[in-house]
Amino acid sequence: MKDIQLRELHRNTAQYADKEIVVRGWVRTNRSSNKFGFIEINDGTFFKSVQIVYEADKIDNFDQIAKALISSALMVRGTVTLTPEAKQPFEIKAAEVVIEADSAADYPLQKKRHSMEFMREIAHLRPRSNTFSAVFRVRSLVSYAIHKFFQDNDFVYVHTPIVTGSDCEGAGEMFRITTLDMENPPRTEEGKIDYGEDFFGKETSLTVSGQLEAETFALAFRNVYTFGPTFRAENSYTARHASEFWMIEPEIAFADLEDNMELAEAMVKYIINYVLEHAPEEMEFFNKFMEKGLLERLDNIVNSDFGRVTYTEAVELLKKSGKEFQYPVEWGIDLQTEHERYLTEEIFKKPLFVTDYPKEIKAFYMRLNEDNKTVAACDLLVPGVGEIIGGSQREERLDVLTQRMAELDLDEKDYWWYLDLRKYGGVKHAGYGLGLERIVLYITGMGNIRDVLPFPRTPKTAEF
Amino acid sequence: MKDIQLRELHRNTAQYADKEIVVRGWVRTNRSSNKFGFIEINDGTFFKSVQIVYEADKIDNFDQIAKALISSALMVRGTVTLTPEAKQPFEIKAAEVVIEADSAADYPLQKKRHSMEFMREIAHLRPRSNTFSAVFRVRSLVSYAIHKFFQDNDFVYVHTPIVTGSDCEGAGEMFRITTLDMENPPRTEEGKIDYGEDFFGKETSLTVSGQLEAETFALAFRNVYTFGPTFRAENSYTARHASEFWMIEPEIAFADLEDNMELAEAMVKYIINYVLEHAPEEMEFFNKFMEKGLLERLDNIVNSDFGRVTYTEAVELLKKSGKEFQYPVEWGIDLQTEHERYLTEEIFKKPLFVTDYPKEIKAFYMRLNEDNKTVAACDLLVPGVGEIIGGSQREERLDVLTQRMAELDLDEKDYWWYLDLRKYGGVKHAGYGLGLERIVLYITGMGNIRDVLPFPRTPKTAEF
Repeated sequence: MKDIQLRELHRNTAQYADKEIVVRGWVRTNRSSNKFGFIEINDGTFFKSVQIVYEADKIDNFDQIAKALISSALMVRGTVTLTPEAKQPFEIKAAEVVIEADSAADYPLQKKRHSMEFMREIAHLRPRSNTFSAVFRVRSLVSYAIHKFFQDNDFVYVHTPIVTGSDCEGAGEMFRITTLDMENPPRTEEGKIDYGEDFFGKETSLTVSGQLEAETFALAFRNVYTFGPTFRAENSYTARHASEFWMIEPEIAFADLEDNMELAEAMVKYIINYVLEHAPEEMEFFNKFMEKGLLERLDNIVNSDFGRVTYTEAVELLKKSGKEFQYPVEWGIDLQTEHERYLTEEIFKKPLFVTDYPKEIKAFYMRLNEDNKTVAACDLLVPGVGEIIGGSQREERLDVLTQRMAELDLDEKDYWWYLDLRKYGGVKHAGYGLGLERIVLYITGMGNIRDVLPFPRTPKTAEF
Repeated sequence: MKDIQLRELHRNTAQYADKEIVVRGWVRTNRSSNKFGFIEINDGTFFKSVQIVYEADKIDNFDQIAKALISSALMVRGTVTLTPEAKQPFEIKAAEVVIEADSAADYPLQKKRHSMEFMREIAHLRPRSNTFSAVFRVRSLVSYAIHKFFQDNDFVYVHTPIVTGSDCEGAGEMFRITTLDMENPPRTEEGKIDYGEDFFGKETSLTVSGQLEAETFALAFRNVYTFGPTFRAENSYTARHASEFWMIEPEIAFADLEDNMELAEAMVKYIINYVLEHAPEEMEFFNKFMEKGLLERLDNIVNSDFGRVTYTEAVELLKKSGKEFQYPVEWGIDLQTEHERYLTEEIFKKPLFVTDYPKEIKAFYMRLNEDNKTVAACDLLVPGVGEIIGGSQREERLDVLTQRMAELDLDEKDYWWYLDLRKYGGVKHAGYGLGLERIVLYITGMGNIRDVLPFPRTPKTAEF
């Protein structure tokens, strides 16, 4: 008999009522008396478990099953019985129970609470817990919602390269990739390491952003997006930074900053709606155990028009607020999380685009405004988190761009192909970056990026 | 007036007939006489261009527009006119044409044929050509079809790590990741390089496969898949190998080799159907210009039941065939592309799973068959290409697995978490790997992996 997966059984219970079926799953709890017992099993396809009732006079291996350990895997043949009066809507009365795979008594995930730190040490087992089962299903749904949003709008998904010879942000905090013998590398006549002998024939690193390459595709397909891993070799030990994370970077041509913000707002709302619709049990769980009021907060986001304020106005508002910040506010500073959160939580009380930042604190490729002081940037701030999206209209004017690169000592030769885009039909275009983990944190109410990455990579940590 | 994207205009032409609209796009061709001219523009949202008719007595900048260069970007306001007798079903009669961005006379993609090699040198511009516009839209659709197939079947998408401290295949052809100063690395007392000082506190590399980590998630969620970049530091200069490529690795629990093959077959058919339905113009183009008979070949795949043959039977068939192979066939050899193609093209004439390979030529994690000589592997061979999928049932028996690891000198300590999976409810499970580029080559009829990767990375090449 083919087994029924538990998602199917939960979603369409009525059609299995009083029928004999086969299910499989891992034991979550097991308690019994002399005559009968209850096992909750879960096969991972659905957030909630299924209760199996087994009786000594119905199955001949009662004693064995009564001792079945947590996380052992069972095959159960039995009858689906609706239980409208009980806590769970149905149970399965077993006619046969077979242990398909044993577990051991030292299984680390027993039915007690564990610290998040401990769970990170058993990252290979933690998706079997309620919390991480919910987190990683939501992460999967968020990822898919992003693809679906862009594909439904005919965006082209482009895989920008991970191995790169250029440094998009000019930040320098990159991981080197090499196949040279580190103990005894080849050297040039001057005694320097000879990267000409390296695998790619030059120095290469892990990408920090696919934006520049995505621009080449936007100027061919009009609407494109990337979705891939990015890397930062920063020694940050915060709850919001990881060395390896996933980023989504849409890029749209014949489009300006306003189009960019409309796209970002529509995308964020779409993602939240998608998750609410496809993971109601998980979201209920987060609302109850991770962040009271989470569902209300998300509902609020979906139903509000995001605010707009320029950086200059925002600085004025913060100065006038009378609030004492740890980091004092002056025009020209990079806004800190405390400022961002005050703006979105206290002043605007909703998601907020801050636009037109001083050029000195933004990247070289952002379009210079007419005031010659600010650039057409837009960051999206959300209550409870701060920035989750950073975007801009791109500088499409070749002369302005090369001037800006000169100011920053960037070598035009390294960007020949990027500059080509401005020579051959370089229309206005814009784009933004969304950190996948940031929005998963935001939607789940989880507090640490290490707990929304399957196997987090952070300084001194690359286990599994 | 908000502009209409060309995909929308092509798909719903009737509703715009005789209406004035605004469109934008880049010039593909431009020819004119004294009185009137024709410009084909394309905004990249649709494979086919739109013809603009402009007349000297309708627009006041006729001379300027008549000189508009290829790849300059236009805004056109005009009336949609159906042309049922002409080659193209409609055209736009311009009332206003504005050049939004100039191009230059040295634009490299003029209206002549270019070699594929030349196109790789201008990878930042090649998606503007017909061929690469079609390739990269199909690549995007294949990627999305894969997500949609698995998500519609409630698989959980898991982002397995790119940075890894372990070597899944034991192959050793990996890229090192480091932030150490290569010129002057820290050294231990023994004079060796001190990787304890490296960013992650140990030696790390780029992943060659997410399978082992995916197994941890399969034993929590039952059905999962990965989709991400993988890396091989092999010095292969073939048309089928790249140093960076994307791989999809589903992993299913409570499942055996037969379930695995059923999943793979359903997935391949789904992907092909999805692309045929969503990119008919692009597929028609490939059928005409890349591979005559492509559509017939794909149609054949979708409508045939994939064959099954064991390795042992396949070797017998090849030996009996009388065909002289460059590489002689004997039980125990790794099948070469010539053997694979002969099996699928000449003997079975359809896609073919070859199963149960000798354990010596397969990875340590594949499940040992009862004959003690073969393992429960399954490779999918397709006509014209050879292998596109490699999979297996995994060894879930702890004692058999550790024995096999000992034979291969793999250190159990490096795989503690992988072995844990066999201790705590390690049910039968299986999975496979699909190379994204392989199936894109297969569906488009393109011949070289460098031409289906946006910015290919191969030995000595990491431009852009």
